[in-house]
Amino acid sequence: MRAFVLFVCLSVGCLAQRPQPCASPSLLTGSLSVASQNEKLMAYAKYSYDALGKRIRLREFGSYDNKTFHFDVLLLFREGVMYKINYKNQTCCKKPLSADFHPLEIPRNSSLLGQVVVGSSSGPGQGVLVNTWWGELGMKKGPAKYMSTVTEIGCIPVSTLFHTSKSGWMVTNFFNNVIGLVDPQQLIPPHFCKGAPLEERLDKDPETFFSLF
Amino acid sequence: MRAFVLFVCLSVGCLAQRPQPCASPSLLTGSLSVASQNEKLMAYAKYSYDALGKRIRLREFGSYDNKTFHFDVLLLFREGVMYKINYKNQTCCKKPLSADFHPLEIPRNSSLLGQVVVGSSSGPGQGVLVNTWWGELGMKKGPAKYMSTVTEIGCIPVSTLFHTSKSGWMVTNFFNNVIGLVDPQQLIPPHFCKGAPLEERLDKDPETFFSLF
Repeated sequence: MRAFVLFVCLSVGCLAQRPQPCASPSLLTGSLSVASQNEKLMAYAKYSYDALGKRIRLREFGSYDNKTFHFDVLLLFREGVMYKINYKNQTCCKKPLSADFHPLEIPRNSSLLGQVVVGSSSGPGQGVLVNTWWGELGMKKGPAKYMSTVTEIGCIPVSTLFHTSKSGWMVTNFFNNVIGLVDPQQLIPPHFCKGAPLEERLDKDPETFFSLF
Repeated sequence: MRAFVLFVCLSVGCLAQRPQPCASPSLLTGSLSVASQNEKLMAYAKYSYDALGKRIRLREFGSYDNKTFHFDVLLLFREGVMYKINYKNQTCCKKPLSADFHPLEIPRNSSLLGQVVVGSSSGPGQGVLVNTWWGELGMKKGPAKYMSTVTEIGCIPVSTLFHTSKSGWMVTNFFNNVIGLVDPQQLIPPHFCKGAPLEERLDKDPETFFSLF
């Protein structure tokens, strides 16, 4: 009997050792780059992320179809509004946001692809242990595969590959992440947004996080 | 005068703080994955690397044009020979190797693209500091751009993007690297390679490291 209990305890212990899908810290600040397989889209963004208040700020520049673009958006999912901010002209464009807030996390039904060390484990500061997960999402436009890499310690996002049959792979790399909000004010609409009228949505598709890119 | 000396010392100190092109450790063992932009090539390899003896062992499997392949090669650059090894059939194919040995390093004339933290610097074990370099190589078939990322501490390879106008991007990701040779015997031809005759090269192009993939 004692051996059986020991066996069960060890089994549970071993299972617990296996990486589990995880949620990233609720407050994050950092940078990300986005690139599409067809080289149409290349973008770089600074982000502030607040999963508690369901708020995201993205200040992004990049190129799409060889045309450069720049935008600065604040997404307030709880209120269902999105601000397109132009600091230079001190103008603000307020739009409805119907998308759901997707927290930075590994979905529960993801499968572990593997655990590797990026860099080396031979010396301190030479590497980081990461887990890579994959799965499928049922999207309106058809199924999409994803592959997400996060750090083993802290569940910090490292990279996400998103594949749709239409547009191929889209790679997002996260870097310079810090836990917490470096500037909480980034998640509050600036003063010149105060009187901005809620514009009607002209496009039929809802504005989702991914359609921003 | 004293202020001037202080200024010079500080300047030199600051310059020294800037990341410098570096050479990776002479002995490395690890894994790598290779993928081409057009999705034609996907491969995974375990490698042993000895820059002192100019020897590389690659045990690789993957797919090219939707056909899977597997190969196991030992490259002895100093002797100018390459062994294609088949353990299952205990056969060995010895070929001339005319390519130069390219150590894993950041070329001196590379430009620093940036320094970032992969993961987070907010807690121990959550991230690693890396430097990304880029440059151009004059290849026979035309210029090729590269972008190489190595860890700040230890100069451990993390990833390399290689771009030619013909084949687009080719991405190599290194992982599970350890400093040293896990199994030095991997870099010695197995016993059944002893009597293998040196085959003549049928293809006109020299066998380079990159043409292996």
